[in-house]
Amino acid sequence: MKKKKRIRDYGIIIGNMKTGEKDLITDVKGVKVGHITLDEDKVKTGVTVILPHERNIFKEKVFAANHIINGFGKTIGTIQIEELGTIETPIVLTNTLGVGTACDALIEYMLKTNDDIGKTTGTVNPIICECNDGYLNDIRGRHVKKEHIFEAIGNAQEMFEEGAIGAGTGMSCYQLKGGIGSSSRVLMLDDTKYTVGVLVLTNMGKKEDLIIKGKEVGKRICEIDNEDNLNVGETKESLIIILATDIPLTPRQLKRISKRAIVGSSKTGSFIDNGSGEIVIAFSTGNKVLHYEPNKIVNIKRLNENYINLIFRAVVESTEEAILNSLVTAKATIGRDGNKRNSLKNYIEKLEII
Amino acid sequence: MKKKKRIRDYGIIIGNMKTGEKDLITDVKGVKVGHITLDEDKVKTGVTVILPHERNIFKEKVFAANHIINGFGKTIGTIQIEELGTIETPIVLTNTLGVGTACDALIEYMLKTNDDIGKTTGTVNPIICECNDGYLNDIRGRHVKKEHIFEAIGNAQEMFEEGAIGAGTGMSCYQLKGGIGSSSRVLMLDDTKYTVGVLVLTNMGKKEDLIIKGKEVGKRICEIDNEDNLNVGETKESLIIILATDIPLTPRQLKRISKRAIVGSSKTGSFIDNGSGEIVIAFSTGNKVLHYEPNKIVNIKRLNENYINLIFRAVVESTEEAILNSLVTAKATIGRDGNKRNSLKNYIEKLEII
Amino acid sequence: MKKKKRIRDYGIIIGNMKTGEKDLITDVKGVKVGHITLDEDKVKTGVTVILPHERNIFKEKVFAANHIINGFGKTIGTIQIEELGTIETPIVLTNTLGVGTACDALIEYMLKTNDDIGKTTGTVNPIICECNDGYLNDIRGRHVKKEHIFEAIGNAQEMFEEGAIGAGTGMSCYQLKGGIGSSSRVLMLDDTKYTVGVLVLTNMGKKEDLIIKGKEVGKRICEIDNEDNLNVGETKESLIIILATDIPLTPRQLKRISKRAIVGSSKTGSFIDNGSGEIVIAFSTGNKVLHYEPNKIVNIKRLNENYINLIFRAVVESTEEAILNSLVTAKATIGRDGNKRNSLKNYIEKLEII
Amino acid sequence: MKKKKRIRDYGIIIGNMKTGEKDLITDVKGVKVGHITLDEDKVKTGVTVILPHERNIFKEKVFAANHIINGFGKTIGTIQIEELGTIETPIVLTNTLGVGTACDALIEYMLKTNDDIGKTTGTVNPIICECNDGYLNDIRGRHVKKEHIFEAIGNAQEMFEEGAIGAGTGMSCYQLKGGIGSSSRVLMLDDTKYTVGVLVLTNMGKKEDLIIKGKEVGKRICEIDNEDNLNVGETKESLIIILATDIPLTPRQLKRISKRAIVGSSKTGSFIDNGSGEIVIAFSTGNKVLHYEPNKIVNIKRLNENYINLIFRAVVESTEEAILNSLVTAKATIGRDGNKRNSLKNYIEKLEII
Repeated sequence: MKKKKRIRDYGIIIGNMKTGEKDLITDVKGVKVGHITLDEDKVKTGVTVILPHERNIFKEKVFAANHIINGFGKTIGTIQIEELGTIETPIVLTNTLGVGTACDALIEYMLKTNDDIGKTTGTVNPIICECNDGYLNDIRGRHVKKEHIFEAIGNAQEMFEEGAIGAGTGMSCYQLKGGIGSSSRVLMLDDTKYTVGVLVLTNMGKKEDLIIKGKEVGKRICEIDNEDNLNVGETKESLIIILATDIPLTPRQLKRISKRAIVGSSKTGSFIDNGSGEIVIAFSTGNKVLHYEPNKIVNIKRLNENYINLIFRAVVESTEEAILNSLVTAKATIGRDGNKRNSLKNYIEKLEII
Repeated sequence: MKKKKRIRDYGIIIGNMKTGEKDLITDVKGVKVGHITLDEDKVKTGVTVILPHERNIFKEKVFAANHIINGFGKTIGTIQIEELGTIETPIVLTNTLGVGTACDALIEYMLKTNDDIGKTTGTVNPIICECNDGYLNDIRGRHVKKEHIFEAIGNAQEMFEEGAIGAGTGMSCYQLKGGIGSSSRVLMLDDTKYTVGVLVLTNMGKKEDLIIKGKEVGKRICEIDNEDNLNVGETKESLIIILATDIPLTPRQLKRISKRAIVGSSKTGSFIDNGSGEIVIAFSTGNKVLHYEPNKIVNIKRLNENYINLIFRAVVESTEEAILNSLVTAKATIGRDGNKRNSLKNYIEKLEII
Repeated sequence: MKKKKRIRDYGIIIGNMKTGEKDLITDVKGVKVGHITLDEDKVKTGVTVILPHERNIFKEKVFAANHIINGFGKTIGTIQIEELGTIETPIVLTNTLGVGTACDALIEYMLKTNDDIGKTTGTVNPIICECNDGYLNDIRGRHVKKEHIFEAIGNAQEMFEEGAIGAGTGMSCYQLKGGIGSSSRVLMLDDTKYTVGVLVLTNMGKKEDLIIKGKEVGKRICEIDNEDNLNVGETKESLIIILATDIPLTPRQLKRISKRAIVGSSKTGSFIDNGSGEIVIAFSTGNKVLHYEPNKIVNIKRLNENYINLIFRAVVESTEEAILNSLVTAKATIGRDGNKRNSLKNYIEKLEII
Repeated sequence: MKKKKRIRDYGIIIGNMKTGEKDLITDVKGVKVGHITLDEDKVKTGVTVILPHERNIFKEKVFAANHIINGFGKTIGTIQIEELGTIETPIVLTNTLGVGTACDALIEYMLKTNDDIGKTTGTVNPIICECNDGYLNDIRGRHVKKEHIFEAIGNAQEMFEEGAIGAGTGMSCYQLKGGIGSSSRVLMLDDTKYTVGVLVLTNMGKKEDLIIKGKEVGKRICEIDNEDNLNVGETKESLIIILATDIPLTPRQLKRISKRAIVGSSKTGSFIDNGSGEIVIAFSTGNKVLHYEPNKIVNIKRLNENYINLIFRAVVESTEEAILNSLVTAKATIGRDGNKRNSLKNYIEKLEII
């Protein structure tokens, strides 16, 4: 894996808080990320998987929440997250027309790894998130197959690549090349170090709207491109934000931190377009929820909510940085019908931000 | 199609309002229902499809809403219904572990029938509802294939069967055989006749809890069966309720009527078990929402909400009746591992309700 | 306090579970209820207060949730309950046009008993619930004054009266006299006895719809009254349901149990009229949430959700019984403009239910 | 009314869209705003009222929605807005501990102007929004009286002042003086000009977080003040955003535009603090909802949602500008216990943004 230059490597520092060691969602202990990339000719798509921890996630669920910023999207599995406050499968990201296949594959994977599902216990709630990569990708061709999901799960590890990779292969962000980005922040609570990590799949926004650290660089890029991009037409795109933390947050607290992600994306210029399905899924590894819990009353830990502001900031900062990382690490891509997205890195030296 | 005896045919009349001509959801003009039934050995499952109208539903969407009674379920497509207030595909019902396949099939069907999706316009939001038929069905075998969804759509018509058929083939209700049930009510508004129709997929409840017209017949059935069924353990089951109407209700009004369905199910004895995913999806054919609407400001019709009570009653009555129809029309079934569900019709003559 | 005959005293037993000692919400240890009754001439109104525990509720908050069954109502304080999952004041019930006064009084009471509010700490979130008693009461006269709220708080105790008293003085239920009702259930979890208690303020429904233990007694009462009551016109009424428990439920779990209260009210015949604001507020004394919590990570207890079904049943049973208690304990009342509500107890001997 | 210098007067132009004539919420035809200011010694508070139109708002309701950004707040009336999608009273803004009095006053005002309420028709749903002005104001003294609400309603007109006035008298924003701000945008739909207007009551944020047009001016102000303000402690503050438009948006569409207001506030640097109750209420004068509507099916107009993006932008731009207007028009204020808030206008010349 070649090390790509990330937004910090350009001297652009987002926020005041300290990042985790890798500045990735996998700074949260146990979290792993795997990709499968389908990138040839008009096929520009793939799969990205987030594993909340290294054990059997169905048997040891994690507290979770989701927040729907804009529901023009096809994410699968949110109803049960909302009701029960847990997730019990890996989280799979892919293109919009691949959600059925991904859902079917994830069910198959869960059946394979859990004999009891659908037999001696209930069923399982697969979590599939998506963006529409149809501008670059032959999305109608539905090139994501079940094996790709299995392989992406198999590939999951702590170090992972960002940019035009995995589910991000064909995504566009601010009409530049987008895709996968990540970032993290660490903070101290009662003398213990905790981490908040973010992974984004970026596919939203108009070029002219892009803002980096307050600078309206999107307008400058339009000038460089000699484009007059001022239009507010529909873009059928999306933004997926996955938040992970080891702070023992309850589902309600996870929902509250999820609601702050939008502050981070707003700082990059997004207006939450009508057609942009924007979904946040957050989970905490700070408590276990056992599928076969023997006790009827269980002890858990919970953040004293008077101290949640610092976590809000961690979410805002790392979401903003993750989005910028998705842009600057994504290579320029030519896809179906010759459609093209440039890379932010080709402009960044010319912008006055660095 | 052999005519099955329905709950009214036993002299059990639910409520005060007049039913539609067929006492089916298809009394709402344009609505059609299709089944595929997979019923051999341990395979007890299938697919049921509801078409909101006879034209291209993607190009002429209908106003819709959903209400999550209990979100321990895997229904797909609710986020976008909530955000945009429309549905743009047929509604597919199947078993829980078949939702991925059904979702993929429905996407394929929509692509086939709409050249523009994913190419010159956005993607599409498939609606898949489910219950867990794993008590009777070899649900882990995942016997529902994509063709079954296509065939069920092809089969859709105004007349359709109830009981152990289609998605209802393997469902259990009050630990009797459940499945598909339907009912309808008509009412007058400003000298025009309107219809409210319901289709249910029933898979919830404990035998001892069953109530018919206020009589605790479930306890009597336990006596007949010589069973002591008093337990409050988990059942991993569900209830899907589809409401259709030609009254021009807005999405918010459709949500309000959806919230009354639970009154109908409560009257049959359901306690909304923890494990019972109970979902209502409602749509109205009273307004069209064109995908390529040329005007920026559009005229629509809307119910004067001061008159919504009558519609609430229609929903309550027809939901209760549809559930009872699902029970009384469903034949006794022996499924996987010899698991068995009796039919209500085998008991009904012995109960004091008729 | 004269002992009134309650629904059980007529031999009408709701459900299978065991009641608490008093069969009142105050069977939950620490919970107290106080009334002020304003009952002369056309003034038929009052105040009822529920104290979650005996200590300073602002300093030791309790986990809480609310569920809006039908939001045609004016309850105050729900936004913050939803966000923070706690309540920090007594819960005040009164008539709809008295909510401003009650809110102001409760703020004043909280300021008096907490020097820090609005000075060295934040403000306070008063909880006021209401029903419209305007059929019997001169509600436009706004006879509830601030002193009444202070007095009702002062009156709070474990034993309290039901029926046409406190906030229930002028309420109507199924067009009979309604008001305050209560009930409770006990259950065992891990060898410890826990209690679920309910207090209702009933003011909803049409006479003809009243059901008692499955019997359509409302229609029979219409016959006795020689009335043809079949109309579905608007009634501007409401139902307030307060759930208390010592089971350590989290806010999300409290919301889930709140959603089952409607099953209990449905069993008494309610259709959730358009004009009926129906609100559930639930709290648990099983964990403390300290306003000045010193630790940043706190230990709490939580129900293993696999065992929540029994609590759902407790809620359903006690809500149904509480509503019936509100009816049968409420005396016939003549209010403003000679408007009259009969008491269920005057009919109950003539109905075939006992 | 002396003309105050607004943010545009400093050459700071927010966004690309055209403002309305006055760049105020009252550019939406029929909307009026009235203030009462209580400003002596430690009393720094007041009332601001927004009238949606000039006729009887109870008899001619307007479509409305609310969106809870952060529910740590005491706004009254949201449940019914959510359920029915209308507002039927003026909107009153005041301090947090004045909501009871304001609610009582608004009820009294509605009773005075509508003989039928509580007598021949139902009750009324008062809308009261609030922020905590306790840093500058003796909020425990509860100086807002009922007369002040009546007077503020009486004062309502098209031209109104911004800054430390009305409900904004004692508010703080980014630890500078905040208060009332407003802005508007116009746009064309089907050859007709429409307006989106915003009024904010600002009381949120840390000084160091303030951003103006992307510049982190808050940090610069901390330097000028020689303060190290880097803390993430609790501030018990709030932000109220009122959106008005004459575009015929349905309640669901109004909710969608409400959700974009936060993008505007994020651009000024807000992190949505835990203690900051942030509430949006939006209404449209584009359709009437008659209390005594004679028809059962009614014709209304509705925006073709494919064109909603432009309205999202109008909301984002005007919210951002309204917040900045609230800051720059608010005079420096010394309140209770010598607490002081400086005015942005005293710094603005020294910042590099102009």
